[in-house]
Amino acid sequence: MSAADALSARCPAPDPVRLAADLAALERFTRPDRPYTRRAFSDEDRAARAWLADRMTAAGLAVAVDAAGNQIGRRAGTRSAPPLMVGSHLDTVEAGGRFDGIAGVLAGVEVARCLAGVPLAHPLEIVNFTCEEPSDFGLSTIGSRALAGKLDAATAARLTDRGGRTLADAIDSVGGDGRGLDRARRAPGAVARYLELHIEQAVSLDRAGVPLGVVTAIAAPSRYRASVRGRQDHAGGTPMGDRRDALAAAAEIVLAVERLAREAGRGMVGTVGTLDVHPNMVNIVPGAVDLLVDFRGIEPGAIAATLAAFEAEASAIGARRGVAIALAPLLREQPLAIDGAMVGLLEDAAAARGVAWRRVTSGASHDANHVARLCPIGLLFVPCRDGRSHCPEEWAEVGHLAAAAGVLLEALLRLDRVA
Amino acid sequence: MSAADALSARCPAPDPVRLAADLAALERFTRPDRPYTRRAFSDEDRAARAWLADRMTAAGLAVAVDAAGNQIGRRAGTRSAPPLMVGSHLDTVEAGGRFDGIAGVLAGVEVARCLAGVPLAHPLEIVNFTCEEPSDFGLSTIGSRALAGKLDAATAARLTDRGGRTLADAIDSVGGDGRGLDRARRAPGAVARYLELHIEQAVSLDRAGVPLGVVTAIAAPSRYRASVRGRQDHAGGTPMGDRRDALAAAAEIVLAVERLAREAGRGMVGTVGTLDVHPNMVNIVPGAVDLLVDFRGIEPGAIAATLAAFEAEASAIGARRGVAIALAPLLREQPLAIDGAMVGLLEDAAAARGVAWRRVTSGASHDANHVARLCPIGLLFVPCRDGRSHCPEEWAEVGHLAAAAGVLLEALLRLDRVA
Repeated sequence: MSAADALSARCPAPDPVRLAADLAALERFTRPDRPYTRRAFSDEDRAARAWLADRMTAAGLAVAVDAAGNQIGRRAGTRSAPPLMVGSHLDTVEAGGRFDGIAGVLAGVEVARCLAGVPLAHPLEIVNFTCEEPSDFGLSTIGSRALAGKLDAATAARLTDRGGRTLADAIDSVGGDGRGLDRARRAPGAVARYLELHIEQAVSLDRAGVPLGVVTAIAAPSRYRASVRGRQDHAGGTPMGDRRDALAAAAEIVLAVERLAREAGRGMVGTVGTLDVHPNMVNIVPGAVDLLVDFRGIEPGAIAATLAAFEAEASAIGARRGVAIALAPLLREQPLAIDGAMVGLLEDAAAARGVAWRRVTSGASHDANHVARLCPIGLLFVPCRDGRSHCPEEWAEVGHLAAAAGVLLEALLRLDRVA
Repeated sequence: MSAADALSARCPAPDPVRLAADLAALERFTRPDRPYTRRAFSDEDRAARAWLADRMTAAGLAVAVDAAGNQIGRRAGTRSAPPLMVGSHLDTVEAGGRFDGIAGVLAGVEVARCLAGVPLAHPLEIVNFTCEEPSDFGLSTIGSRALAGKLDAATAARLTDRGGRTLADAIDSVGGDGRGLDRARRAPGAVARYLELHIEQAVSLDRAGVPLGVVTAIAAPSRYRASVRGRQDHAGGTPMGDRRDALAAAAEIVLAVERLAREAGRGMVGTVGTLDVHPNMVNIVPGAVDLLVDFRGIEPGAIAATLAAFEAEASAIGARRGVAIALAPLLREQPLAIDGAMVGLLEDAAAARGVAWRRVTSGASHDANHVARLCPIGLLFVPCRDGRSHCPEEWAEVGHLAAAAGVLLEALLRLDRVA
């Protein structure tokens, strides 16, 4: 029996009953009128953070909040070394679910409980990242972005929500320090390894009946703001041939996004999730439509080809209809190929724990994407029912979560030796 | 010289300078942050009404407000008879124009000024109808609807805006009596004839360079609320083949409305003016879209065929995409063919005044549609630049307006003998 095997044998396995109790406790921190809605920087977010701090403390972790508002439960290692980090997030979208992000944070706390009394060479940090979901400030993954040095104090002081509050002030409201945000930044190498457990948010594991996914690549989102400017006219008096209907043009864009992603195959997806019509009155031909386009893919070649085809198509729609279509690129991230050694270590850990797994890719991006700037990362998926996520029906089996937490625990024990 | 010709010779012609001054005075009653926005029941509406009351009084009219809030300037006739009525409206859409409705009311007042000292057998009423444009109460043409007995006090007490105010209270706020609304109703025959002057809100007169349109038919709107219910999913993690994207289905509906109206020809138009996406977030496949569909036509056969084709098409889109599409009919009005004698009388009046005209149809509906329940109506159009309306660029030449007001005056003199 190796040293790691010996430690592993001394650890209790993650307890599905404890995990289920924590999940049930956390789902009560929601906006009263809308189930499973805990937007970042809300009263519900603050209440959930207070609850989590108690759970972390009870698990033997010392709780701190960094300048980005990231809530960090930490225990010391037996030697001076950068920490092993496990993280995810507790914030949700509007009418979201009970597992997205949450599963990873609670699994981390459960793993810390299992490790109580088991010495590790590395410090261990369990992190609840600030605002992983899209925020009113036009930015997501705020906490992990700041940790990776991709969001600075000047930007946080400049970005505002619709009410005029700055992101810096919002960060202050959860115990961070928006003006001192740069202090949240960690240097590359200052984290030894990062692991994240997450629900798949896709149907492949659930459909295959496999309880665990080891992620090999994370798709990169590319986003555009499309501003369609036609001509506002009376809906009764304007013959069809005289119209420059911004909504009809936008409808063609919506369908082009869908068709181009379908045609590209190779894991590409394309979505128009946001579309606003002006003036949005029943008897007026819409003069303007603003929409957000999101493409994601795993293969850089497929992504580039799809984006180029989309830009050409939008231009053709505008020319054919006599409407102005401006595409502002908002985001163009590179897909992340996960380090083969980390994939292999997670597969070995799954095998050691007797958990069946398959390799998967992630369509959604995660806090892990940003932390990958600091150190090798690993990402584990558990199935979610019918692939549903970002909705109240989101569901993962606690048995799957506990098994995946066991693999996480096993991986930490192994990483403690090699990192 | 006939008696009418003699009276006509005694009347001064409508004065473009006076008309221009009134138009300029009225455009200042607008929401301060948005040019040419005077929504019904707003402070601006009330201020414009007070101004109009002064102008009516100066024109020798006795001003009263009926139970629907319709503002009526009246002068007596030489015999007991139902009145000749001239009307339109002063309210606007958001960011609307300076002529839609307004031109008809101000032309009416100008005609009354020209008629000062000229005896008519019939009483004359110049009417500013309450809330012709779509309101927050889900209803338009509120004043003329009540006049025609198509809106009762019970309905006005039941309909509310988003703030919870009842339509009855809103009517009270402009001097009407919402609870006594039924008193605004007039019996068929209680109005002798109704005339309305309006901008065309379409491009045909402007394009043809003809200063006057005599309307032969008014298109009827048919409206649906379409509720599209797909499945809300994560935009990154849901493969294209697994989606039930409500917005993509809605986009097909938008394009089907446009295509079916184009294919129908015969004056049909189709518009989706309102479309709302839920939850409207960039990284979520839309689960629900609500939209309003508006079809209008002149020919009952073309209307019925288009509506049937649209219903079949919506059903096919839903079936093909696995989304639920429910169509709730909101409105199905009959097109209005204008009495041939009224069309002929307006053509004779135009000829007598030396104003070139052509016959046109109206895509938009007007207060005249409702008054047609009470008496024969006539509708005159003046060109508007590029056919633009319901927008700040809306523009009509004051020379065209004054010429059309002259035809209106001539028609009143002729109707006074025959009505």
